[in-house]
Amino acid sequence: MIPCGIPYVFYSLDSVDDDILPDTIIHNNKVELIIGEVVSRDGKFIIMKDGERLGFDKLVLAAGSLPIKPDIPGIDKHGVYILSKDRDELIKMRNEIISKKNVLIVGGGYVGIELADQLSSAGKSVTIIEMMPSLLPGSVDPEFGAKIQETLEKQGNTVITGVGVSAFGGNGAEILVDLNNGKQIKTDAVIISIGFRPNTSIADNFGLDFDPVFGIEVDEYLRTSEKNIFAIGDCATKRNCFTGEFRKIMLASTAMSQGRLAGSNLYAINVVKTFSGTLGSFATKVGNLSLGATGLTETQAKGMGMKYVVGQAETIDRHPGKLPGASKITLKLIYAQYTHVLLGAQILGGDSVGEAANMLSVMIQKKMTDMEIDTLQIGTHPLLTSSPLGYAIINATVNAIMKWYHKMEND
Amino acid sequence: MIPCGIPYVFYSLDSVDDDILPDTIIHNNKVELIIGEVVSRDGKFIIMKDGERLGFDKLVLAAGSLPIKPDIPGIDKHGVYILSKDRDELIKMRNEIISKKNVLIVGGGYVGIELADQLSSAGKSVTIIEMMPSLLPGSVDPEFGAKIQETLEKQGNTVITGVGVSAFGGNGAEILVDLNNGKQIKTDAVIISIGFRPNTSIADNFGLDFDPVFGIEVDEYLRTSEKNIFAIGDCATKRNCFTGEFRKIMLASTAMSQGRLAGSNLYAINVVKTFSGTLGSFATKVGNLSLGATGLTETQAKGMGMKYVVGQAETIDRHPGKLPGASKITLKLIYAQYTHVLLGAQILGGDSVGEAANMLSVMIQKKMTDMEIDTLQIGTHPLLTSSPLGYAIINATVNAIMKWYHKMEND
Repeated sequence: MIPCGIPYVFYSLDSVDDDILPDTIIHNNKVELIIGEVVSRDGKFIIMKDGERLGFDKLVLAAGSLPIKPDIPGIDKHGVYILSKDRDELIKMRNEIISKKNVLIVGGGYVGIELADQLSSAGKSVTIIEMMPSLLPGSVDPEFGAKIQETLEKQGNTVITGVGVSAFGGNGAEILVDLNNGKQIKTDAVIISIGFRPNTSIADNFGLDFDPVFGIEVDEYLRTSEKNIFAIGDCATKRNCFTGEFRKIMLASTAMSQGRLAGSNLYAINVVKTFSGTLGSFATKVGNLSLGATGLTETQAKGMGMKYVVGQAETIDRHPGKLPGASKITLKLIYAQYTHVLLGAQILGGDSVGEAANMLSVMIQKKMTDMEIDTLQIGTHPLLTSSPLGYAIINATVNAIMKWYHKMEND
Repeated sequence: MIPCGIPYVFYSLDSVDDDILPDTIIHNNKVELIIGEVVSRDGKFIIMKDGERLGFDKLVLAAGSLPIKPDIPGIDKHGVYILSKDRDELIKMRNEIISKKNVLIVGGGYVGIELADQLSSAGKSVTIIEMMPSLLPGSVDPEFGAKIQETLEKQGNTVITGVGVSAFGGNGAEILVDLNNGKQIKTDAVIISIGFRPNTSIADNFGLDFDPVFGIEVDEYLRTSEKNIFAIGDCATKRNCFTGEFRKIMLASTAMSQGRLAGSNLYAINVVKTFSGTLGSFATKVGNLSLGATGLTETQAKGMGMKYVVGQAETIDRHPGKLPGASKITLKLIYAQYTHVLLGAQILGGDSVGEAANMLSVMIQKKMTDMEIDTLQIGTHPLLTSSPLGYAIINATVNAIMKWYHKMEND
């Protein structure tokens, strides 16, 4: 399964199997693929469930993650589904959900809001419950969460934030969802989408160091506590690129970067790693509204005790704005107050914000400052971007510089 | 007029005035706007045509550029238009062109191909004549020019490359265009779009150093030969960011960068300029095919005697590729062979290539190497980008690294 494509099997794609990445890339690269379960290790041999022993010089663990099953009474009731990445479970769940009218989604993260977008497009009546005060709480600031909520509500979805689920009950096909604010919701199906946990059981079996919340412990070269065994992706620990603390983040793009790093360092440490830690670059789309976020949010910067300056800009992604297909862009940048480096960005708008967010990711990874970005040379085109005068990344940067001058004057 | 919006007044926009940037931004910033003609200078005073003298401490010249009128017999014939940025001329030309059936465009640069796209969309029968062997010769390599040509031809346009125009003749409304290959084309209208020249007459009147081809000479801070007088945009000289040579490039985005730099350095040299010279970042769209290009082409790198490695990738801008709206992406990267820095990029695909090209511009401006880009952290989303496995910028970089290893092995 392509994990980030899973919400789309409920509407935009015709089947679960349309979201499968074929093995072609493995075969084309002449890699042998063995399907089987690994149960333990004996030195430089792994032991398969059928007793077979496979020797290795170097071993890379890419065991992925498993859905979190919350400890809520009634969780095992029929019609309450935990969104997984397992093909057979997904096919079963999809077939059952398709016949229902009312669906309640527990979790307002990326997967939850994308499920709501797809299920409401498929004609379902959808309610999302998010325990935190706003949607996408770990990735964007509340005002950006509010814009996503507004779009979901315009699609006909009901969004409830700041409330948890205390129990699932009811008889027969009807499910009664008890909320911790005392209210109760009736629904036909529940999808639990509150995140994943690293699959660390293999590390446990192999005697490697791991943390049950953050994953199999790895160093800068993705080596586990045994130097010939590497771990990458959702099963491996990640560190925050700003503070070095463990950070629970599970993104295909982070996993890919780790995979390339492990590959480069497998047989000889090549010291190609120039960026220690996870930036966290996300993108999503709800209705016609796309969102990209990278680096720190204002909430996170404040929580870490950082001094920062916020730069903001609103613009249109075409010029002149009368051209067809124009969408409004809203951008927020977080700059470090003293070093002037870019720490984070959140951008809302049309489809172009996906790559615009990646451009901002490059800027953060290269530790670019407001002064550099102010005079950046970018290309523009009437049908593809904002005007040179209205280019949001530059204008939000100018906004931050002006606030910073003002702060200096007041100090 | 918004210069890059001019082709769109022939179809996508309803009128020439829809392509005008209002003066609001000037008034909102409390800048006084005086409409008038400056004829000469007396020390720190400029002299207006009506004799008025206006004093200045600092003066910024932003006189723009004028269309090049080629020395071809019959150029002044009625029905032969030189595409200008003058509102009244554009309105007249648009009104006349709208009633014609056959239009011939001289010049296969950005403006020429966008005009062809718009005029064919408006139901005209269009022929483009480009003197060089392929379209967009200064900005992309021939194989990318060929893809644009293919798209224009699919739209019903006729494209003729490697041929010049030797004369315009004919009687009455019919125009006979003589080509330098001996052939002749009958048409109802001709649009000349072979580029612009810097408007240097003001520099001449003011006694400032200038080059008639490359513009008013400026230093790194955009100061002319008189230190209190600055020049920016199309009227000012630009240098190639790789070699420091003069480079004739006229882009709104370059002008904007120069404007910000001049503004930052006007009253005190702030040394904020970290990038000396013009990168040249372009974008365009023909039919549903978008193109972005930045930095050097392979042709240019070869012409400069550089050693380089080319990295290529083809991918789809959605994942899985079965999602609606998916377009093919074709990317070519030019890396310096010994220093490994990115020198240039050309990308074809859907609308996302506009901002993807800007991401590549940032990478060139920050002198990023193949090893850094290989392990870059980027964000991906099914509806907005390629898959992490298929991300073109990374895959073309891996392709370049593999070729480079191969070159090393063979050396």
